[in-house]
Amino acid sequence: MLELVEQKRIKKADIADELSSMRTELIDLANAAKAAGIPVIITMDGWSAAGKGSQIARLIKYMDPRFYNVRPVRRPNEQELRKPWMHRFWLNIPKKGDFLILDGSWYSDIIKSYMNGEITKDEYKQRINDINTFERQLTDDGYLIIKLFLHITQDEQKRRLKSLASDEFTKWRVDEQDFINNRRYDKLFKRYDKTLCRTNTAYAPWNVIPANDRVTAQYTIMQVVTGAIRSACAAKAEGAAFRMNAPFPTIVPKSGSFSLIEVKKLADTDMDKSLTEEEYEKALDKYQERLFELQNICYQLKIPVIVAYEGWDAGGKGGNIKRLASALDPRGYEVKPIAAPEPSELARHYLWRFWTRLENDGHFTIFDRTWYGRVMVEPIEGFTPVERADMAYREINEFERQLTDWGAVVIKFWINIDKDEQYRRFKERENTPSKQWKITDEDWRNREKWDEYEKAVDRMISLTSTDFAPWTVVEGNDKKYARIKALKTVCDRLEDHIRHLSGRHYD
Amino acid sequence: MLELVEQKRIKKADIADELSSMRTELIDLANAAKAAGIPVIITMDGWSAAGKGSQIARLIKYMDPRFYNVRPVRRPNEQELRKPWMHRFWLNIPKKGDFLILDGSWYSDIIKSYMNGEITKDEYKQRINDINTFERQLTDDGYLIIKLFLHITQDEQKRRLKSLASDEFTKWRVDEQDFINNRRYDKLFKRYDKTLCRTNTAYAPWNVIPANDRVTAQYTIMQVVTGAIRSACAAKAEGAAFRMNAPFPTIVPKSGSFSLIEVKKLADTDMDKSLTEEEYEKALDKYQERLFELQNICYQLKIPVIVAYEGWDAGGKGGNIKRLASALDPRGYEVKPIAAPEPSELARHYLWRFWTRLENDGHFTIFDRTWYGRVMVEPIEGFTPVERADMAYREINEFERQLTDWGAVVIKFWINIDKDEQYRRFKERENTPSKQWKITDEDWRNREKWDEYEKAVDRMISLTSTDFAPWTVVEGNDKKYARIKALKTVCDRLEDHIRHLSGRHYD
Repeated sequence: MLELVEQKRIKKADIADELSSMRTELIDLANAAKAAGIPVIITMDGWSAAGKGSQIARLIKYMDPRFYNVRPVRRPNEQELRKPWMHRFWLNIPKKGDFLILDGSWYSDIIKSYMNGEITKDEYKQRINDINTFERQLTDDGYLIIKLFLHITQDEQKRRLKSLASDEFTKWRVDEQDFINNRRYDKLFKRYDKTLCRTNTAYAPWNVIPANDRVTAQYTIMQVVTGAIRSACAAKAEGAAFRMNAPFPTIVPKSGSFSLIEVKKLADTDMDKSLTEEEYEKALDKYQERLFELQNICYQLKIPVIVAYEGWDAGGKGGNIKRLASALDPRGYEVKPIAAPEPSELARHYLWRFWTRLENDGHFTIFDRTWYGRVMVEPIEGFTPVERADMAYREINEFERQLTDWGAVVIKFWINIDKDEQYRRFKERENTPSKQWKITDEDWRNREKWDEYEKAVDRMISLTSTDFAPWTVVEGNDKKYARIKALKTVCDRLEDHIRHLSGRHYD
Repeated sequence: MLELVEQKRIKKADIADELSSMRTELIDLANAAKAAGIPVIITMDGWSAAGKGSQIARLIKYMDPRFYNVRPVRRPNEQELRKPWMHRFWLNIPKKGDFLILDGSWYSDIIKSYMNGEITKDEYKQRINDINTFERQLTDDGYLIIKLFLHITQDEQKRRLKSLASDEFTKWRVDEQDFINNRRYDKLFKRYDKTLCRTNTAYAPWNVIPANDRVTAQYTIMQVVTGAIRSACAAKAEGAAFRMNAPFPTIVPKSGSFSLIEVKKLADTDMDKSLTEEEYEKALDKYQERLFELQNICYQLKIPVIVAYEGWDAGGKGGNIKRLASALDPRGYEVKPIAAPEPSELARHYLWRFWTRLENDGHFTIFDRTWYGRVMVEPIEGFTPVERADMAYREINEFERQLTDWGAVVIKFWINIDKDEQYRRFKERENTPSKQWKITDEDWRNREKWDEYEKAVDRMISLTSTDFAPWTVVEGNDKKYARIKALKTVCDRLEDHIRHLSGRHYD
């Protein structure tokens, strides 16, 4: 791809008028994107000394600074290394109508990590997949991603590095590594080129900018950026998907295939399972003790543990979570109750509020309701069109795959009760003063849609029971049975994982 | 204070029933606090090996884990050191009805920093003030702060450290420093005691817990915590302020006095100031260039710069901010537009959303509308009772004082226009298609309250023009004049600060 790029030298005088009118247009386009609620991400990558910083400054000079945000991408810090590698990029995705401009990006992140030997070739390939997934998920959600790569030749880079190094004011910006990299330009060229080719998708194509000449670079960037936003606004106005102008032949990334596990329908669950008080007390002690020890091991091995609770209203999630949490060292877990999204959350990709709630590795993150609301309450209550919600099955599998790639154990519970049991519990709540806050009209309304929900849950479980993040349906008519089953499942999953990791047998 | 504490040994059998009923009560109280919207902070401090972690675990064992959050306080990380020292505690304040339980707290933070020689005696004293301010601001806002200090004797500590060190499973929890500290127990005793005495306020009194015996400690903690929440709920139900049970004589912290600068009323502003196009262009180049250089110096000296914009609707804040921002390296600033608070923000102290928006040191944080909404729009529109809003003058001065103590330059602009000019601009917006989104019915409604707002603004400026964070009223009828005045003010303030810091003359 890079070898196709022709370095040009456009005269400033020849394009001054056009540049000036593109600048005016960019301001209008930024307002139009704001009005249309399109979030825009511009990534500025390229060779060292290619002029990324100054090109960003030129690009935004006339834009309203309240609507954009420029972030340099540095090496991840200690804190960032304790999260999935894409976490820090998810964290900063813009809200609808805002611009995020990155000096460097997820690309500089993986290329540096790979060149420095911090990640293996397999990990590098995995990250390429993660990037394609990330960009697809965002563009599917209406994000516009404009990827720029500033390309300069080896000679030009050498000239610039020397010039920077010889000036008292700028010499801090270059170091020995830059000169070493300049000497191995060919090797880097291949690496960049491969990375660009593998991520040159139709939904987020690359724009390689000839940057030996600064005016040419500025002019080309302006053309690309205005063109992309113009198309996006036009497409949005027509209700169509963006048609990006892709300068190079694009690829269709291989879709990660997920092997799904066969699961029973809810209707086939045996709802008569129960425990006696005595059996319960004994098992509770046993599994809580075991879990406490397992938490200690997870902490030392830095294994993140994600526990996701879903289930019918009044299914007993709260009490179940309590038995799990009370076994744990309280400094090592956090329970995240998920309510309706806030405005800042609605203004971003729906997975954002889950990405931002992940605790560090070695810790438990326990979700009380989860990202699965996307395929249950959202389409059923009409918050999200069915076609958009349906895309979530794949997105969720990808999300959970990224969690397990990070090293996490992902445990998902559906706490199941039958319709009669729910009625009994609703009534009990209504008749017990201290529990009345737990029951609302909405609960009764949801209950009327029981059959619709049951169908959605069956579908959800069948489409997202992957081998790396399987569902466990917990028979919940008897709360004691349900609590022990959940505790035991967590213990078993963690033991399996630790055994697998260390070849160690845990008893 | 500590010398008054008597170590006791209560027999478990004697209090088993009472402990069990207190546990049940705690669950009810937690629900009551939730219902009453009282946010609760419990800090667990004390000697090393005093059993903080296990006492926290006992305290919360039966509570609903969805409503509390346990956080260990470690030494601040690299990222946290780039913010004001209280930033990391502000970040995590609970929302209404939730519990935050800290293993360690701001106290362990300053005591360790002081004992390690990382802060001077003066800084230590300053931080004591900051803590008293922080706790007062939160309790004024309805927060309940329960401070526990687990006290053990030197012998008991030695015994426990030895026991921990001799067990394969626990030895990682102690290090050489713990034994050194045990030998200098007397010195630490004095330091703890002084710190406790100086922060033993009526609004957040200390509870020293005799902890040689674990059962006694558990029992005492349970009494303190249930008692405090019970009082808080009762007081809230009566609409009264909390009456905490203070076991030791409390102090009234010296109120930080702020020297205020004499300021003119808005009505006395000369609104005829203006610049010709030529004067403007020349000055714009000059000050933008100077500002760019100053930003570079601030970045290198790690000076945080906070620019706060307030002003009349259609006063020209947006265009003014744009001229400031376009002078800066975009990687070194962020503009924070402040809109109506979101639910998660309304559920916390109103300063929270500003604390959480601060950029790192060396960076510019530019606020488009600010914390001053608290004393303008909030009382005038009835969002906040006048008496509560009036407390903000002091709170804001304290907040800005903490910013300048951190090293920040705090620059505050009131962009002033007169009523006729506003009318002209409103009409122009209505008649210009590309500007219509900027004008709403609310703007017209606010305009009807011009006189009320003007009075509030005069009062606000006169009460918060401190010598460390003075207001600059910008004559805004002529936008060109206003932009240059703001730019020049920023340059002058930064130059003064840098000169003051380094004895260096900047030209």
